[in-house]
Amino acid sequence: MSIQNVAIIGLGLLGGSIGLAVREHAPDVTTCGFDRDAGVRAAARDRGLVGTVCDNAADAVRDADLIILCVPVGAMEQAASDLSQHIRPNAIVSDVGSSKQSVAEALSRALPDHTIIPAHPVAGTEQSGPDAGFSSLFSNRWCILTPADGAEKGAVQSLSDFWTKLGANVELMDAAHHDLVLAVTSHIPHLIAFTIVGTASDLEEVTRSEVIKYSAGGFRDFTRIAASDPVMWRDVFLNNKGAVLEMLGRFSEDLTALQRAIRSGDGETLHDLFSRTRAIRRQVIEQGQDDERPDFGREDHT
Amino acid sequence: MSIQNVAIIGLGLLGGSIGLAVREHAPDVTTCGFDRDAGVRAAARDRGLVGTVCDNAADAVRDADLIILCVPVGAMEQAASDLSQHIRPNAIVSDVGSSKQSVAEALSRALPDHTIIPAHPVAGTEQSGPDAGFSSLFSNRWCILTPADGAEKGAVQSLSDFWTKLGANVELMDAAHHDLVLAVTSHIPHLIAFTIVGTASDLEEVTRSEVIKYSAGGFRDFTRIAASDPVMWRDVFLNNKGAVLEMLGRFSEDLTALQRAIRSGDGETLHDLFSRTRAIRRQVIEQGQDDERPDFGREDHT
Repeated sequence: MSIQNVAIIGLGLLGGSIGLAVREHAPDVTTCGFDRDAGVRAAARDRGLVGTVCDNAADAVRDADLIILCVPVGAMEQAASDLSQHIRPNAIVSDVGSSKQSVAEALSRALPDHTIIPAHPVAGTEQSGPDAGFSSLFSNRWCILTPADGAEKGAVQSLSDFWTKLGANVELMDAAHHDLVLAVTSHIPHLIAFTIVGTASDLEEVTRSEVIKYSAGGFRDFTRIAASDPVMWRDVFLNNKGAVLEMLGRFSEDLTALQRAIRSGDGETLHDLFSRTRAIRRQVIEQGQDDERPDFGREDHT
Repeated sequence: MSIQNVAIIGLGLLGGSIGLAVREHAPDVTTCGFDRDAGVRAAARDRGLVGTVCDNAADAVRDADLIILCVPVGAMEQAASDLSQHIRPNAIVSDVGSSKQSVAEALSRALPDHTIIPAHPVAGTEQSGPDAGFSSLFSNRWCILTPADGAEKGAVQSLSDFWTKLGANVELMDAAHHDLVLAVTSHIPHLIAFTIVGTASDLEEVTRSEVIKYSAGGFRDFTRIAASDPVMWRDVFLNNKGAVLEMLGRFSEDLTALQRAIRSGDGETLHDLFSRTRAIRRQVIEQGQDDERPDFGREDHT
């Protein structure tokens, strides 16, 4: 089954980018969108994020054969419940949330009789809202689908084809494993960045203006991640608690070991680690997951 | 006194960038350079990093009225000692090290009778070596001078004028305060990035190839910083031990508080912090210390 009508619920960075990517890469597919915020709906109309912006969710999903929930993971269950009476029986319900076990459970509770295939495009920027989206957000990024064991193969294939059309590389994964992988590659980095930016802005000995002034020494990279959407990230940590706490424990142990190495003047331990981590960067670049130019090719370095 | 002849000892990212910046912004100033690595000297000649690449340090510094040591902070004392018999009596000796108290002490031990004015241009990239430098590295970046209390005012002014010519904004600061400020804005962010990249590459449950594949979720930003020069960074941590351990303590306390908030499901604490940190990002951009485009304007987001 090829997807012809897509409903996008939530028209922020992710929802808006899906709409724009469909328009560019799959112009034969129609899109309807809804956001519970009237201001976001108005902005979505201005930018043409979707073919039709509806003023209620029911209208947006009525004809859809794919519904994508692009709301914070803590809001998924309510958003899905609100739609339950209006979704076509054989429509696929999916999402873009950063945690997958809790979302799968929430959607199953809200829509026990529908075809649910959770998804997570591993893509985004620090910006949010209807003005933040762009059509190439998913190009050469991974989109992880976490269908339940008994999921209908045809539906999984349809959703996979859809994301492939938008430029993503699709991977299937067990939801629990997804949550562990993303805890390491996304959730813990965000938590650490939020923390250090908070720590730095609350010091007595160093003023906030000094922190900002001298941020080019490394701190500024953390401020980018720490500028991400607060509601989205609050929900991610509350909904992937187990994996996040597990990985945070590992990180803290490793940090304590380095702290001890610094205290005791053990340069060899430091040098060994710092040499190993360089190799990871090379692989990230080789696999096309980052820009190889120094400083990510920031504009002022030419 | 206006500086006419500059000797650059160490022709990596910083030394090379100084040479290139002088050629572009102060073409009347002559530059001589030395690196103890013959391969680096050859590369420096190829790229024309300095006017003359000398095969020994003595020749490089003989006519210089400013000598800038661009070596890892742990190598400063030896590098300065090696020059002591060859430096002109009224020459200024400076450096570019990321820690300033220990460097000031090391240089004073090596050159007790010379004019020493430590400096730290807060600029760099994750790349290193003679091919990494570029002439605009210091444009709109801060260069912090940490002259001792009794330092000769004319010499401080000359060095300040020199850095201003290269495009930097110059600030004077007490060395101890510098070390605390940079611990927060540079050293701890690097330590954290090295740690999480190390943690992520050593897990049993998540393979290294998965970490790299899904790095666009946030992890890739940390890999950039964690690709920085291992020797330089080992020396920074060993030479700014006090301030680094102090700031690491604060960070760990704050991380523990967030860990507790996640464990207890305290979304309000998380949301409060995540909202505050957004404001810091805006100020970093307003002050021209980072690129305002989403994702640092990485090439693949157009």
